[in-house]
Amino acid sequence: MSHIKNDKLQRLVVGRGANDSAAISRAPSLPSLCVSLLGGSAYHPIAVEAIKPLAQRSEGYSLTVPSDGSPAQLTSETTLGLLRGLTTFRFDQLWYDLQGLTYSYQAPVKIVDDAPAFPYRGFILDTSRNFFPINDIKRTLDAMSSVKINMFHWHIVDQHSFPLDVPEFPELAVNGAYSSSEIYTPADVQDIISYAAVRGIDVLMDIDTPGHTAAIAYSHPEHIACPFSTPSATFASEPPAGQLRIASQATTNFAANLISSVATMVSSTMFSTGGDELNTNCYTQDNQTQAELRSSGKTLDQALDVFLQAEHAADMILNHNITLGNDTIAIVWKTSADAPSIAARNFRFIHQPSDYFYLDCGAGGWEGNDPSGNSWCDPFKTWQRAYIFNPLENLTSSQVALCLGGQQPLWTEQSGPENLDPITWPRAASSAEVFWTGATLPNGMPRNDTSALARLHDIRYRMVQRGHQAIRLQPHWCALRPGLCDLGS
Amino acid sequence: MSHIKNDKLQRLVVGRGANDSAAISRAPSLPSLCVSLLGGSAYHPIAVEAIKPLAQRSEGYSLTVPSDGSPAQLTSETTLGLLRGLTTFRFDQLWYDLQGLTYSYQAPVKIVDDAPAFPYRGFILDTSRNFFPINDIKRTLDAMSSVKINMFHWHIVDQHSFPLDVPEFPELAVNGAYSSSEIYTPADVQDIISYAAVRGIDVLMDIDTPGHTAAIAYSHPEHIACPFSTPSATFASEPPAGQLRIASQATTNFAANLISSVATMVSSTMFSTGGDELNTNCYTQDNQTQAELRSSGKTLDQALDVFLQAEHAADMILNHNITLGNDTIAIVWKTSADAPSIAARNFRFIHQPSDYFYLDCGAGGWEGNDPSGNSWCDPFKTWQRAYIFNPLENLTSSQVALCLGGQQPLWTEQSGPENLDPITWPRAASSAEVFWTGATLPNGMPRNDTSALARLHDIRYRMVQRGHQAIRLQPHWCALRPGLCDLGS
Repeated sequence: MSHIKNDKLQRLVVGRGANDSAAISRAPSLPSLCVSLLGGSAYHPIAVEAIKPLAQRSEGYSLTVPSDGSPAQLTSETTLGLLRGLTTFRFDQLWYDLQGLTYSYQAPVKIVDDAPAFPYRGFILDTSRNFFPINDIKRTLDAMSSVKINMFHWHIVDQHSFPLDVPEFPELAVNGAYSSSEIYTPADVQDIISYAAVRGIDVLMDIDTPGHTAAIAYSHPEHIACPFSTPSATFASEPPAGQLRIASQATTNFAANLISSVATMVSSTMFSTGGDELNTNCYTQDNQTQAELRSSGKTLDQALDVFLQAEHAADMILNHNITLGNDTIAIVWKTSADAPSIAARNFRFIHQPSDYFYLDCGAGGWEGNDPSGNSWCDPFKTWQRAYIFNPLENLTSSQVALCLGGQQPLWTEQSGPENLDPITWPRAASSAEVFWTGATLPNGMPRNDTSALARLHDIRYRMVQRGHQAIRLQPHWCALRPGLCDLGS
Repeated sequence: MSHIKNDKLQRLVVGRGANDSAAISRAPSLPSLCVSLLGGSAYHPIAVEAIKPLAQRSEGYSLTVPSDGSPAQLTSETTLGLLRGLTTFRFDQLWYDLQGLTYSYQAPVKIVDDAPAFPYRGFILDTSRNFFPINDIKRTLDAMSSVKINMFHWHIVDQHSFPLDVPEFPELAVNGAYSSSEIYTPADVQDIISYAAVRGIDVLMDIDTPGHTAAIAYSHPEHIACPFSTPSATFASEPPAGQLRIASQATTNFAANLISSVATMVSSTMFSTGGDELNTNCYTQDNQTQAELRSSGKTLDQALDVFLQAEHAADMILNHNITLGNDTIAIVWKTSADAPSIAARNFRFIHQPSDYFYLDCGAGGWEGNDPSGNSWCDPFKTWQRAYIFNPLENLTSSQVALCLGGQQPLWTEQSGPENLDPITWPRAASSAEVFWTGATLPNGMPRNDTSALARLHDIRYRMVQRGHQAIRLQPHWCALRPGLCDLGS
């Protein structure tokens, strides 16, 4: 609760709340906030509730803040719901500072049964292309929790580096990390998981396979087809090339052992084995893979199927004819238009559309020797762009339940700790509201970016008060004058 | 010189220089750097040389770093040239760290008569739309000096706020600054000017007039036409509207007094009075301006001419038929294509093309109520885009001398201290090299973005070592492997 006093955010209006002074002097004090668990059910700590299977998570709460001097009331059936309610109490345009006094001009506030429209509301950080120290991740978890994001999809390794110390395979990080000081130890991972859990966030670990695995070749060249082959565009979506030899039994065993070793490090019921951007030519050019396919009589897709059954993979549904269990959740990332075809195959899915949500897009190309400097996912995805995303577009009513939510990713070809905050915040708060709120606002009106702007300003200014380097959305002049900087105003 | 030891930057190669170990053990030590002023001419401090008129500034130097154990030699005719040479000695891919040892693998180095191709190499910061504390500006000056940028164009006030305490007009900041803690006092300005000068940087103060002056209306409504008029798009390039009443003698006197009062605060021989984006409709709708034009019998352009003569303005040459002295320097900002027509009128000019140099472009629109979120100057200007800029394009040989250089601006509708470093660096180093180096590299080869990338990486990693939050240009993997992440590689 210290944040309520420490934020010291003045109202975002001309005069910064000076006009509230008389009303404040007449207003009663709020004596206390009564926090109650409903239903007398067994009590579980937040950290336990936060990592339950999605369908069992309960995040709803009710909150009243009276203006007559009686206590505020927060109720929920779970500790996790109480955390969400406290987050609303702390963050959502409720408390402001005037000359050291903390006050609300909005009371009485009555929020009944606020609950998320979607159970999965995530943020992805890629810690392979460039490394992020633990404290940067923790600071990001703080910000995520403040906008009720409940999933940290940790894209911990990729083709550029392997910064994870896997107990059974220490050689992967020793040879594949950028340096000995750029490694997440098992203790670091546990630290992050615990830090996240008490903030209501589940950590989904992502070991990208069988593509994007060049960094494994530094310690296990025997498992990698087309390692560092050039021209890389022929062998991979980006340099360096290299993919696990999916037709090899030894490699399949290695991958399954790797996944299960990492799985023992985490607490979540969810895990990602990647599966994106598999390059067929890499295998066509790999003599060992070709020999193994011939000897087994399998096609590449059949070999992949066997490999993935061993690995229990996620999102390879669209491009390959793969048999996956119904407990698999697909991540729809290429474009939002792919969601209906995933739904038609009865897979549950998570929205991560590059055309709306990618935080890294719009900085131009990062590859060298490219004077045009264009990138496949230009332009920049503005907060407005993320905010207008409709998770249920083109889904039938029977398919709606398949949509579990969504997440905004930060792929880090052009990012590092230096710009983590400004490239992420407050933009990622945009999709957080999309998936908490759903199609309509609490007042029944449709979501719209005009009413969202004032909320985004508020959360941004609060984030800055708490040490997050969140970017400005407008000149400060505009933030103090809602509507006066609207287009056409 | 402490930076040479403190940077502790390992070589940007695989192994980070570990392979240099044997060569280092055999290499002689560099005993000293001998710094000599040539020609026996009168000695002036750097701070004096740095603010001389452009044509009198001398920044050339020669530097040799032998590999035989004899001293390094740095010579110049001026202290300013010695500073530039020391900057090369400190920053330019010369010194690396291996286990605490500082060494160079490039010696012997021989740089003869290195000097800037253009005398004006600048960076613009807008401190009106959002405010920047003094320490952010100083940190930026440090980075500027490290890439030999020699002009800080301080766009200190604009329509959104007036954060400058002008001694003769204290009411401007009292009423026009965002808050009492967001004001640059005369002592702050002097502090910045001194800090810049010893780093070889001249501070060009910019008081934007007669447009972009809404913030003056808070204290002097009598001088402002169409203050805060709406719809703002009809009256100004962006909200809030408001322009000095150029046809009014009282306003002309006020503006001239304001400019001369600010001019007494600064040391530079250069000053900008803005002059961009004047909105004719604002004056058409202003009864007072119309009455004054009628009574004087002047057209608006004639009134503007009188106003500017009083103010001695800068860059209004293209759109209005204005008579300006030849000591006026034009800033070419709308598009680079305007430069030849400025040159044809025999004005000296500075490149600041929005289509190559604007650091703020590409974040989408900042105005509210705009779901498309597009901006006039999208897309993002990549470092490659800035780097390929040719300052002399379409100029005749007799016009070449009119081009004084250029500068990259950061307009701050969507920026603040939170993203100052990552949005500026290392991109602004790109134009710094364009204007120091000119059309060809020291080895006689044309400038090209492929050879520039390794230098930009080097300066970026050094900046980070010194506390600047400069963004990554590529995955660290690529920074260690020049060429392997080139397009087509």
